[in-house]
Amino acid sequence: MHRRKAHSQKTEERTPGIRGRLWIDGTEGTFLGYGRIVLLERIREYGSISQAAKAMEMSYRHAWELVDSMNGQAPKRLVEVVTGGRNGGGAHLTDEGERAIALFWELYADFQKHLKQQQKKTRLLWR
Amino acid sequence: MHRRKAHSQKTEERTPGIRGRLWIDGTEGTFLGYGRIVLLERIREYGSISQAAKAMEMSYRHAWELVDSMNGQAPKRLVEVVTGGRNGGGAHLTDEGERAIALFWELYADFQKHLKQQQKKTRLLWR
Repeated sequence: MHRRKAHSQKTEERTPGIRGRLWIDGTEGTFLGYGRIVLLERIREYGSISQAAKAMEMSYRHAWELVDSMNGQAPKRLVEVVTGGRNGGGAHLTDEGERAIALFWELYADFQKHLKQQQKKTRLLWR
Repeated sequence: MHRRKAHSQKTEERTPGIRGRLWIDGTEGTFLGYGRIVLLERIREYGSISQAAKAMEMSYRHAWELVDSMNGQAPKRLVEVVTGGRNGGGAHLTDEGERAIALFWELYADFQKHLKQQQKKTRLLWR
């Protein structure tokens, strides 16, 4: 399964050069960002918000708030939460959730490409 | 004189869409970023770190640490600090400081252009 580390974008590299961070705002502030997308991927992987949170070393409460924020700002919810049942419920991604993940990684890849193209300009600083 | 507000990049806009932040790392972490560049411009404007800090509603200590971080990571210092004298010393930008400002705004403008080009893709999320 496709898997990405949940580390911060900011600390990915330590060598001198250009860096950036990308996110998508919704009507109430941040809607999608690196951490939120990784959370969606973990929910897809584990079928559970609590297990996804645990895998990311994030509190259940925080993970739940992030899911709530994403669901609340999307026209159609990204995560479907099922309560009750034998295993105390679960969570799975909707098609909208899959689409959000795909779009974010597309924007992210284009952004990394842009930064790489700009990288040579910063070398002037250390000439 | 050319002047920019010292507000955060993150809170510039509130409407849904793609957002980003850009900075340049040096050997010890952040070297140049939006706030640091505005600080350099204020130092150029006021000829004083303390007055520049005041204009940005930043503590003198924090401004001094930022200048120290930039000077320490650049091959040639960006800010020349003059101690003593009738007015208790002052500070002015070096050519290297001017060059850093120009480079940053160039990268910043290219980045804004990139984000604008990507903007239409995020509309899919709210279709």
